[in-house]
Amino acid sequence: MAVNTETPSQRASKWLASLAAALGRGDAAGAAALFTDDGYWRDLVSFSWNITTAEGKDKIQQMVAGAVIPGKSLAWQLEGEASEVDGVTEGWFRFETAVARGYGHLRLKGGKAWTLLTTMTELKGHEEHKGPTREFGTVHVAQRGSKSWLEQRQQEEAELGVTTQPYVLIVGGGQGGIALAARLRRLNVPAIIVEKNERPGDSWRKRYKSLCLHDPVWYDHLPCLPFPEHWPIFSAKDKIADWLEMYTKVMELNYWGSTECKAARYNESKQEWAVEVVRHGKPMTLRPKQLVLATGGSGFPNMPSIPGMDKFKGVLQHSSAHMGPEGYKGKKAVVVGSNSSGHDICVALWEEGADVTMVQRGSTLVGRSQSLGALTLDSLYSETALKAGITTDKADLLMASTPYKVLPSLHAPAYVKLQQVDADFYAKLEKVGFLLDFGEDGSGIYLKAMRVGGGYYIDTGGSDLIIDGRVKLKSKVGIERITEHSIVFTDGTELAADLIVFATGYGTPDHFVTQLLGKSVGDKVGKVWGLGSNTRGDPGPWEGELRNMWKPTHQEAFWIHGGNLHLSRHYSQFLALQLKARMEKIPTPVYALAPVHHRS
Amino acid sequence: MAVNTETPSQRASKWLASLAAALGRGDAAGAAALFTDDGYWRDLVSFSWNITTAEGKDKIQQMVAGAVIPGKSLAWQLEGEASEVDGVTEGWFRFETAVARGYGHLRLKGGKAWTLLTTMTELKGHEEHKGPTREFGTVHVAQRGSKSWLEQRQQEEAELGVTTQPYVLIVGGGQGGIALAARLRRLNVPAIIVEKNERPGDSWRKRYKSLCLHDPVWYDHLPCLPFPEHWPIFSAKDKIADWLEMYTKVMELNYWGSTECKAARYNESKQEWAVEVVRHGKPMTLRPKQLVLATGGSGFPNMPSIPGMDKFKGVLQHSSAHMGPEGYKGKKAVVVGSNSSGHDICVALWEEGADVTMVQRGSTLVGRSQSLGALTLDSLYSETALKAGITTDKADLLMASTPYKVLPSLHAPAYVKLQQVDADFYAKLEKVGFLLDFGEDGSGIYLKAMRVGGGYYIDTGGSDLIIDGRVKLKSKVGIERITEHSIVFTDGTELAADLIVFATGYGTPDHFVTQLLGKSVGDKVGKVWGLGSNTRGDPGPWEGELRNMWKPTHQEAFWIHGGNLHLSRHYSQFLALQLKARMEKIPTPVYALAPVHHRS
Repeated sequence: MAVNTETPSQRASKWLASLAAALGRGDAAGAAALFTDDGYWRDLVSFSWNITTAEGKDKIQQMVAGAVIPGKSLAWQLEGEASEVDGVTEGWFRFETAVARGYGHLRLKGGKAWTLLTTMTELKGHEEHKGPTREFGTVHVAQRGSKSWLEQRQQEEAELGVTTQPYVLIVGGGQGGIALAARLRRLNVPAIIVEKNERPGDSWRKRYKSLCLHDPVWYDHLPCLPFPEHWPIFSAKDKIADWLEMYTKVMELNYWGSTECKAARYNESKQEWAVEVVRHGKPMTLRPKQLVLATGGSGFPNMPSIPGMDKFKGVLQHSSAHMGPEGYKGKKAVVVGSNSSGHDICVALWEEGADVTMVQRGSTLVGRSQSLGALTLDSLYSETALKAGITTDKADLLMASTPYKVLPSLHAPAYVKLQQVDADFYAKLEKVGFLLDFGEDGSGIYLKAMRVGGGYYIDTGGSDLIIDGRVKLKSKVGIERITEHSIVFTDGTELAADLIVFATGYGTPDHFVTQLLGKSVGDKVGKVWGLGSNTRGDPGPWEGELRNMWKPTHQEAFWIHGGNLHLSRHYSQFLALQLKARMEKIPTPVYALAPVHHRS
Repeated sequence: MAVNTETPSQRASKWLASLAAALGRGDAAGAAALFTDDGYWRDLVSFSWNITTAEGKDKIQQMVAGAVIPGKSLAWQLEGEASEVDGVTEGWFRFETAVARGYGHLRLKGGKAWTLLTTMTELKGHEEHKGPTREFGTVHVAQRGSKSWLEQRQQEEAELGVTTQPYVLIVGGGQGGIALAARLRRLNVPAIIVEKNERPGDSWRKRYKSLCLHDPVWYDHLPCLPFPEHWPIFSAKDKIADWLEMYTKVMELNYWGSTECKAARYNESKQEWAVEVVRHGKPMTLRPKQLVLATGGSGFPNMPSIPGMDKFKGVLQHSSAHMGPEGYKGKKAVVVGSNSSGHDICVALWEEGADVTMVQRGSTLVGRSQSLGALTLDSLYSETALKAGITTDKADLLMASTPYKVLPSLHAPAYVKLQQVDADFYAKLEKVGFLLDFGEDGSGIYLKAMRVGGGYYIDTGGSDLIIDGRVKLKSKVGIERITEHSIVFTDGTELAADLIVFATGYGTPDHFVTQLLGKSVGDKVGKVWGLGSNTRGDPGPWEGELRNMWKPTHQEAFWIHGGNLHLSRHYSQFLALQLKARMEKIPTPVYALAPVHHRS
């Protein structure tokens, strides 16, 4: 019974040694045999130069043979102590490839790997300078022609994009573009962000005034410069906007505000892009080697087409054009849509004293902020997690360590629990006719976000207004037509309105790909976002990873970046490393480039 | 021999228990008996509502009887493990008073306390919200009339100082004023900073272009929001300026730029100040309860009066007016002064290609940046220190734990060592006639800074230029007069000049006190800065603490704040707590208010 005296750390170390040995002798089958039949190996760039999950022994063997063994690896070394809970041994480890250092996470069941995560942390010889390796700063020696820090920054600003070209051009300067540009700056990759708004943070500032983060602070840090300890749990949009603006400044990013990107064409022979931009009204062409789209979907509001819309005499607008409730006191307001924006706008209009009705077209996942936190994020992103040693970096890796395939079955129980905990709340919502769902397979918010990027509301006060009728609800009916002063529904009822806001969401980044790069490139790149879960809005086949996000696409030198603050923070690391490797001409053979199943 | 088996922690805990017991039974003599004859108790606000050091048993007994026992204290509890090196037992501890929580540091020799430091960390019931107690942020409930974060900020900015009055007015918006305002904001003390420059950071931006921090990054953090991990060791002035500007924004400080403070009078009956300011050219009166001067000395350039100055046909300026070397290529430049600014300006002029001469009037302490670091700051402020668990907070407390009285004897050996390590360097400097000193008692830079605020140069490239004659040196002579195109020295030599820069330093904050508050208040408050060391510029008698800094003065409701980034960071904590206590009407009996020995 010697096995019983083995500590979790010994077990994990032994497994890592076995894997290293199999890889060392070029034995893909032997390596795969170390996994359970339903095992997963998720690799973030370190071996595959891709973001990919090998699902099951066969796929793992293929990946080992195709991606891991060609370059081999070394120094698989447990870090800290492994733990064991419910028969699952869990541990962190370091490893190296020929060109990079990596960090990983391992879960063993019965001595075999159930999940293995390998992530690239830095390229050898191109490490970020920080802490003990931070830069000296001002040079302590007199030399003729030396330039001050300010002169150097001013020179860079004057020259980059004008007389010299950036290696990377990032289109879109929200949190995604900013986080990526910060990573690239730290890796000495010349980059420019172009953004149609004037100032960093404007994409937040220009939204309706009550907008705030529905995710807590621990989940929202940017790379390199975390929020300070006193930052509130839920930040208002303008506070985040100010943070983004100062972050852009102190991270020394080349941020071109008031600059619109019109079109981009790839020149195969020159291996560079020609990107047409209009900066402060002046057209110019940028010629970066790599092009990153970080626009999110919010440039393309989804606006339904309803008979009579053009005849409406009041204000009819998409939520993106709705700035706030001012002027609607005592007026009749109708908000079409029941996700986050729809709720937030209803609340703000009610607070102002408008007569508000929400029109719900389809079911919505609603969860109370506190209950959701307690059941989901809190174990990874909270003061409690921090106290238990789960830093934001560790939490990000733990998030990444769970394969998308198993997430639904892991998340669903929390939503069963949620319905029990808040049974009274949900009963009240249903009583007034609110259509609820918890995801097609009951897997909740995170999966909805991964599949279609929306369809939920984290309750920050709106549900109580609906429950007690302060905000009226019209659901289970369609809109038939709009008249000069009202909305007529499919059940024949009519609702007078001075204001109609369509909180009907946004398109996906696909639209931007086609708009900027043309239809043929758009079709080549295909659909963006979604997992192939075969649920509404996310058709199969199963992809195993988000489509086209942060990884090579079928268009050379073209990348898509984005997501909420969490995703922008974590995945910018891997996209930045992929770009840096290409700049340094390190070979980057891409393993398992995902086939395109759906045109954009 | 049981004593030999006692661990350092046991010894320290036992001592703390004995002190607590003596205080508990009201036994000042018993408490004092726990100290060595040459023992020190330094208190930062926690018992004395003052910044004061009791030197020797008698003074300690007086302080215990007068300040500690009246309020008593409890829960003297060792934190972490004590250590023992060379017969000195060292440990950290927590304690409480009736109104506050405190943190302290203890050094025992032979079972008795040699140094005891007690510092206030927070007022009970008025704790800063951070980490586990951070604010919720956006309220997750709908309520009529609720204001967004932006609306609240805009309202505060519109009203504070106009229709409502700040509790504290801070005159001067450099790092001192900014750090204090940040602490006050976190403690919910309404405060305004008035600053004559337009933007935060301008007091750095407007200095000569090669200015950079001569202290390393670990020493320079601001409160609440430390520099990120990749920040360089030595920052250029404009980089620090940008950081200060963004810090002011994200810490949500009320910063009135382009505002000059003209005069202030205290109204005893109303217990408030009437402060005349001119904001964007418009005169107005502010009526704060507390007034803080945080102007440093740099508003008052020291400009010598030399015959013929008015006849000079070239450019003659104080270093504060010298913006940089542009335009002086091939020109003859003379820099009078051999401290930091004098050297920096010589370097920049030489780099530009000017013909540069430094005029040295008195001796200067020069130390090479790296050698100095290795011998002084590195043990407290460095990556090595961080790795050993000495965070910036801990380092600040260790700095504060050593009484000023013993500092010279502790620092002098490092400067003896420095002269050995860099003997060759110093020999070369002396060979070209450079006048060196290491402080009157050989105690080095920090003591010079505490006594007179200057008189040294941390070599960042200037000394080599002087050594090899690329920058010429004129020393051991006085300036007799200035002609239209030259300087004539007391030895009869003459030096042609197109530019003369007087890098002759600045006055002390005393000047501001008298200018703003009038001569009678200025005289009442007395000299600012200095320890009473009875060395040049710092007359006795011995004070034991810096005069008038961060502690009550002889003018009610008037305070002086400042110092380098380190002092601004650490002592803003104690000044903020003193101000908060007064706002909350917590009794603050000041023990041992320092007598004024020297008029301002």
